Amino acid sequence: MSDRKISQAVISRLPRYLRYLGDLKDEGVERISSHDLSLRMHVTASQIRQDFNHFGGFGQQGYGYNVGYLYDEIAKIIGLDHKHTLIIVGAGNLGQALANYMNFERRGFIILGIFDRNPALIGKKVRDMEIEDISKAPDFVKAHGIEIAVLTLPKAGATEIVGKLVDSGIKGIWNFAHVDLDLPDVIIVENVHLSESLMKLSYKLSRGADSEI
Amino acid sequence: MSDRKISQAVISRLPRYLRYLGDLKDEGVERISSHDLSLRMHVTASQIRQDFNHFGGFGQQGYGYNVGYLYDEIAKIIGLDHKHTLIIVGAGNLGQALANYMNFERRGFIILGIFDRNPALIGKKVRDMEIEDISKAPDFVKAHGIEIAVLTLPKAGATEIVGKLVDSGIKGIWNFAHVDLDLPDVIIVENVHLSESLMKLSYKLSRGADSEI
Repeated sequence: MSDRKISQAVISRLPRYLRYLGDLKDEGVERISSHDLSLRMHVTASQIRQDFNHFGGFGQQGYGYNVGYLYDEIAKIIGLDHKHTLIIVGAGNLGQALANYMNFERRGFIILGIFDRNPALIGKKVRDMEIEDISKAPDFVKAHGIEIAVLTLPKAGATEIVGKLVDSGIKGIWNFAHVDLDLPDVIIVENVHLSESLMKLSYKLSRGADSEI
Repeated sequence: MSDRKISQAVISRLPRYLRYLGDLKDEGVERISSHDLSLRMHVTASQIRQDFNHFGGFGQQGYGYNVGYLYDEIAKIIGLDHKHTLIIVGAGNLGQALANYMNFERRGFIILGIFDRNPALIGKKVRDMEIEDISKAPDFVKAHGIEIAVLTLPKAGATEIVGKLVDSGIKGIWNFAHVDLDLPDVIIVENVHLSESLMKLSYKLSRGADSEI
């Protein structure tokens, strides 16, 4: 596999490939050409081949890709061939919703703890976990070697707890807080700014469908 | 204001400008130069000026932008100067979490109904709304002139209900379902694929921080 740097755009498309390949597997399709895949996904066959070439091409012969093999290889590249441990920091509506979302577990993302600073929430059960005091999160990360923190708490205080989690060895932040985290480069941050997504929708509604290029 | 088409990248940055300008307002800052704003936002001053020029430039003089004016103008451009009506289609964990999230209302996004197909959920109260049968959603959209449907339901059945909502006059879809919606161009779709975001995080963790360019 190539060690070249892969562009953000290619990385962003990998989960979508996986989703379509999963659907094909469910339908019992064993082989698919880049042409047929391109028709399904509304992208060009040449983009598919270019994207796959970053990872060695997955050996398309004249008769197309092996769906099961391609699915497994992309899952491996995404890192879904091993488990990831998570904690949820912020047990409000969104934090609890994510904790209850079974699909993440099926993908190997295992939630081991959920934390909040609100005394009214601490001790309450979400799924089979008790919500713990946020001050215990850094030690929990250290003790269990937690890889990912899901940040679902208000902007105020987010930066402070993140600093402590980083000191405790957290490797990635899935950030739902409305704040840009300024962290060392080795820490991976993936932002989901829901309000900003809704505002983009609002912008396009206000300006009409042809407002984007 | 220009009628030229604005690139997706510029549109994506508008909510972030608004967030920083809101913070500045909260801090009591009345004027800011593009240089100082660029330092805060970790973008170049020239990008800020270029972005703002798409909307007429907002009249920066030698002494910088008026923060309150700039905030209001960008809010107007995003369409936050008037209310938007929403329904939530899918009253599972995520749908209920979004229904309970007060910040959207403060921005003028008013949730008027919540629907599900699960008989165990129908009749249950979320905030002060009763969950209604999903089959009633299209008529509700028509009767109340609902602008946006928030799709928080499983992939299966998503396409079917969306088709009916479009026939009933829905204008925008905030799509959390794991499916690419194939809709007429006049319908605005904004996707939030949470699993794909988590997979991007996983990819970067697996490959190391320097895997992206």
